[in-house]
Amino acid sequence: MKPCEEEEEEGRATAGGGGGDPWKECAEVAVQLARRAGQALGILLEEKVQIIRKALTEEKQVSTKTSAADLVTETDHFVENLIISVLKEKFPSHRFIAEESTAAGSKCVLTDSPTWIIDPVDGTCNFVHRFPTVAVSIGFAVNKELEFGVIYHCTEERLYTGRRGQGAFCNDKRLQVSKETDISKALILTEIGPKRDPATLKLFLGNIERLLKAQAHGVRVIGSSTLALCHLASGAADAYYQFGLHCWDLAAATVIIREAGGTVIDTSGGPLDLMSCRVIAAGTREMAMFIAQEIQTIHYQRDDEN
Amino acid sequence: MKPCEEEEEEGRATAGGGGGDPWKECAEVAVQLARRAGQALGILLEEKVQIIRKALTEEKQVSTKTSAADLVTETDHFVENLIISVLKEKFPSHRFIAEESTAAGSKCVLTDSPTWIIDPVDGTCNFVHRFPTVAVSIGFAVNKELEFGVIYHCTEERLYTGRRGQGAFCNDKRLQVSKETDISKALILTEIGPKRDPATLKLFLGNIERLLKAQAHGVRVIGSSTLALCHLASGAADAYYQFGLHCWDLAAATVIIREAGGTVIDTSGGPLDLMSCRVIAAGTREMAMFIAQEIQTIHYQRDDEN
Repeated sequence: MKPCEEEEEEGRATAGGGGGDPWKECAEVAVQLARRAGQALGILLEEKVQIIRKALTEEKQVSTKTSAADLVTETDHFVENLIISVLKEKFPSHRFIAEESTAAGSKCVLTDSPTWIIDPVDGTCNFVHRFPTVAVSIGFAVNKELEFGVIYHCTEERLYTGRRGQGAFCNDKRLQVSKETDISKALILTEIGPKRDPATLKLFLGNIERLLKAQAHGVRVIGSSTLALCHLASGAADAYYQFGLHCWDLAAATVIIREAGGTVIDTSGGPLDLMSCRVIAAGTREMAMFIAQEIQTIHYQRDDEN
Repeated sequence: MKPCEEEEEEGRATAGGGGGDPWKECAEVAVQLARRAGQALGILLEEKVQIIRKALTEEKQVSTKTSAADLVTETDHFVENLIISVLKEKFPSHRFIAEESTAAGSKCVLTDSPTWIIDPVDGTCNFVHRFPTVAVSIGFAVNKELEFGVIYHCTEERLYTGRRGQGAFCNDKRLQVSKETDISKALILTEIGPKRDPATLKLFLGNIERLLKAQAHGVRVIGSSTLALCHLASGAADAYYQFGLHCWDLAAATVIIREAGGTVIDTSGGPLDLMSCRVIAAGTREMAMFIAQEIQTIHYQRDDEN
């Protein structure tokens, strides 16, 4: 019996059916796929296989989405297809939300159905520059609740996993967030986001200024929301906030952070809304709330309004 | 015969003496030491040895230098001593410029003598937070000219080396900078620097704003000048600039970047002054000059005026 196929006809979940761990197989497949996709990415990035690189160089058609910084490459499509084609065959009734499919016009709506939320290449701009901070992110939600998340950092070969109620791990080492509550001892991570108009830049830089004036130890911008959130889960940073990220940047990491003991909330200080394109994550609720009070909102359209 | 000991009594270099490669042994010792120091750091950072971590936690006395962000730990002293004690024994007439010795009052003056320029833990703030972007940097200058540089990224176990006239390498793979000249296709790296007063923050953030308005693909802040400069040397980024870094952040990386085909200049657009605490490095001269024209100066005291 495949527990992941225990669904009603329309794909609605009946996870309670068999007791035990109804999404175990799904989680296992996610790990295999994240690793496989990540390794493919790693090969491309590290230029291990000259023939792939040559093919990529010849074929690569970098087009622009909302701005020059928001690059899309053939690679994104390739990796997304690699993941989704396997999942669709294995779990035909499941739904999918993924970066490239959404860009191509697919609806980005979270229903009660088992739903895979996928970012094939998080850190696309890094990837294009061969800046080695790039990851594959696969999250899974049922009844709108995140069940597990898998993130593969392709150049460092680190696999981050989180399963609701079962903890979070990096290559089998248990993850634990920082317990810091004092901003003056905190390392903060953020990302610029896709909008680069003068008003957005002012708000983005103004928020960094507020946190540095509040004596934060440091602010880091590494170019991958997903991996920044993994650093948070591992206790290497104390908080992360961003406006303009998407549900596929957040889904897997949210499970991992929560299972590592961390807090993931809306930038208003309220509960996380996966579709709202904004987030604060922190090791402690106090730290998250402090940041919610400090930063100014940058408005982005919701994922489910596109 | 040990070519590194071919010096006059006062330590002045006579590198031309034997022909061949007068600083070969020095460069080899630098590689060994960077690796050894980096591995020690990696052990501390990765918590591989519980006993060391426990000792560190108990003993660690984080004190503040110029600001909360500029942390000094026991580890810096430990690693600096580990490196310098070996070098002093092997090359007793050589001079040393190193971060912790300078903080403790040693003069920071570059003479014609063979001089080792050492940053035992670049990315101290990262290290304190266990954010895995930390390096050991060892540069070597004779007659005020940089001869070689060795940088060890302790968590990724990457060894970057550059020897004047002999190329630059990362774990034996030859490094080559990006050939990008167009800011709108560029990934730019920078660091905040130690000063956090409101006027400095305004200038720091204003510079990022100018580059993003000029349509730079992205700006990254990773918390280690040395490793940011290594990314530049490897072509993973197109430019780096900073105010408020020190000669020990720059010395090794400058050789590596130049040997990878890159440009390292003063933020004014003029020649690099290793003691001026400011730098622009880029894959191309055009990119470096564009940034020199865009950014506003942030004033820091020179290293040799402290």
